[in-house]
Amino acid sequence: MDYEAFFTRELDTLRDDGRYRIFAELERRRGAFPQARCFNHEGVERVTVWCSNDYLGMGQHPAVLDAMHETLDRCGAGAGGTRNISGTTSAHCELEAELADLHGKEAALLFTSGYVSNWAALGTLAARLPDCVVLSDACNHASMIEGIRHSRAERHVFAHSDPEDLNRRLADIDPARPKLVAFESVYSMDGDIAPIAEILDVCEAHGAMSYIDEVHAVGLYGPRGGGIAEREGLMDRITVIEGTLGKAFGVMGGYIAASAALCDFVRSFASGFIFTTALPPALAAGATASIRHLKASNAEREAHRERVAQVRRRLDAIGIPTLDNPSHIIPVMVGDAKKCKRISDWLMEQHGIYVQPINYPTVPVGTERLRLTPSPVHSDGDIDRLVRGLSEIWSMCELARRDMAA
Amino acid sequence: MDYEAFFTRELDTLRDDGRYRIFAELERRRGAFPQARCFNHEGVERVTVWCSNDYLGMGQHPAVLDAMHETLDRCGAGAGGTRNISGTTSAHCELEAELADLHGKEAALLFTSGYVSNWAALGTLAARLPDCVVLSDACNHASMIEGIRHSRAERHVFAHSDPEDLNRRLADIDPARPKLVAFESVYSMDGDIAPIAEILDVCEAHGAMSYIDEVHAVGLYGPRGGGIAEREGLMDRITVIEGTLGKAFGVMGGYIAASAALCDFVRSFASGFIFTTALPPALAAGATASIRHLKASNAEREAHRERVAQVRRRLDAIGIPTLDNPSHIIPVMVGDAKKCKRISDWLMEQHGIYVQPINYPTVPVGTERLRLTPSPVHSDGDIDRLVRGLSEIWSMCELARRDMAA
Repeated sequence: MDYEAFFTRELDTLRDDGRYRIFAELERRRGAFPQARCFNHEGVERVTVWCSNDYLGMGQHPAVLDAMHETLDRCGAGAGGTRNISGTTSAHCELEAELADLHGKEAALLFTSGYVSNWAALGTLAARLPDCVVLSDACNHASMIEGIRHSRAERHVFAHSDPEDLNRRLADIDPARPKLVAFESVYSMDGDIAPIAEILDVCEAHGAMSYIDEVHAVGLYGPRGGGIAEREGLMDRITVIEGTLGKAFGVMGGYIAASAALCDFVRSFASGFIFTTALPPALAAGATASIRHLKASNAEREAHRERVAQVRRRLDAIGIPTLDNPSHIIPVMVGDAKKCKRISDWLMEQHGIYVQPINYPTVPVGTERLRLTPSPVHSDGDIDRLVRGLSEIWSMCELARRDMAA
Repeated sequence: MDYEAFFTRELDTLRDDGRYRIFAELERRRGAFPQARCFNHEGVERVTVWCSNDYLGMGQHPAVLDAMHETLDRCGAGAGGTRNISGTTSAHCELEAELADLHGKEAALLFTSGYVSNWAALGTLAARLPDCVVLSDACNHASMIEGIRHSRAERHVFAHSDPEDLNRRLADIDPARPKLVAFESVYSMDGDIAPIAEILDVCEAHGAMSYIDEVHAVGLYGPRGGGIAEREGLMDRITVIEGTLGKAFGVMGGYIAASAALCDFVRSFASGFIFTTALPPALAAGATASIRHLKASNAEREAHRERVAQVRRRLDAIGIPTLDNPSHIIPVMVGDAKKCKRISDWLMEQHGIYVQPINYPTVPVGTERLRLTPSPVHSDGDIDRLVRGLSEIWSMCELARRDMAA
């Protein structure tokens, strides 16, 4: 077996399919978000980032940075161990209390990332609840799919955001068996929002646990940034709320919020929680500061909504085809992997606009897109330049425009 | 199904078995390592940490903290996206180049943790190499086991650090099939070191890839801190070297170093790499500073060896039973979960010495232990207090001492 030849062949196939990923090497500048320096595009030095998941620009917020600097100075860099072996600090405990409060739950449990929180929590619950059946939304994130797969529990995929299909599938399962329904609130790539109340009705009718991934919603929705479930007054009906500290909160890490017994159970049995070094105290402190700020301040959420609405209005006016949805994510549909990459390169090189092409396997083949994430730190001038750039490239490539808004 | 009752019952079982984990809530003080404040032991305020994996105290090194402060100020808190979608910065690229150089490999690939690097790299290689067989050392870490399990590849467990058993097992496998041999250099809980050269001989004889986990060795061994494989001049014979930035390097994160094609392959196909927010740039910069320092300076490694030798000598002199090994990890054997916990509590409460009890499932039942990790930041006085404390509790508990050193 020639391993190197195998790897090279597989990579060549990706290149031939237009699916080989080239990472833009960037450096956002604190105080100048969404502006960044670019290091690996010839002739391009300054770019405006239009695809960050630091949705509110909290990654440059003084309260967040002050907390991180202060904790670095007080406690040092890393945690130095797993949570169990010398790695738990007061910064971790405070953050967990803050998260439990944010979601109105008894407890919360931190993980090193949102990916790990989904993988470890779903994997542990589904594997350890005796004879558990998992009902998984067809569009769930890779981390949820991998966690469920890892558990080896029986799994049924229900039609995306379809409570009726979920109901039919649950009705076929022995009522005595433990059941776990896993779904998201805001779906990352289409930006659609789940019918949470209807899904919870079905869960409750069948005695199923509910597990919601709110990673693209926490900080952004609800009067205190608790997510879509907070906005809709549904948090207390959900068994497990999972979120991230690496998107709207601007730092890094993931978590679940749930009953004290459930969190303690996952804490005690999840390999991906137990056998890994804890988050650095400075990250925990930065996340706590960010959550506290967004609990008390609606200014960022309001500015965010206004910017999103304005970008949508402007793109609609010139007929750039976007996927309609009620969230902050604006998918500009291209529908071809190579074209998507070419448009992205052209925007970067001609206009200093950075928006990464989103191709398979992140989205299905034929739905390749540019995923725009306007934020409160994008200025009117940034929006003008984006709209002008997209308009030019759409004309040049003779890409279909949809009927102009009347 | 009463889910809450189930969780509570399972937690009660852990408590009855003496396996329920209570995390010590600590705060190490920069400049005063290994001293820490303790928040959840009544009457205990200041403790000396004897079980940190920040083996060299690099988590408080000025070069590390300066790089983190500077990058926080320049680039902000989080990366704001996955590596592919706006999350790659020059700090990540520099760190990957530094790691490739450290291990004499063409490339390196960063992950959010050592756990994720093992899980994702082993999981991806074993799943995607067609009809791959994995040979896994019987004492491999949970993250490796989970990654191999996740791949669903055929797996054979070979006797711990036994090249002959590995050879027999490899001889039984079709020579044409891809084979991957996964093992560690320093085993965390016993502190023993693998016969790397002999294992590589066997791998090469059978055309197997070799994958070594050096998380408890990088920074600590070898003239530039490249690990045991560097010390023994074996790095170029190993296919994949995996390491962590969260132990001796004092920060957080994991990585693999290997050929350019292999790293690019894992980069392109590993779900746990692709679909997760990148490490914050400040963590990457801190890790780079730490690696650079330890490439150039042997002072920390020499002081570390001296401290470990002194603690061993002192414990031997009073007959405290330790597991003999050639590494920096000193397992003090107790052999009973409840007793182990009681000794740990007593050391904390009576002497302000913090050493976490290590119980099942981290170690096999009957081998419960206190795992001591002396570091260059432990003073003579710290060692005196540790030895006095252990001597007292050993007498009080009438625990067996081994024959005193002649």
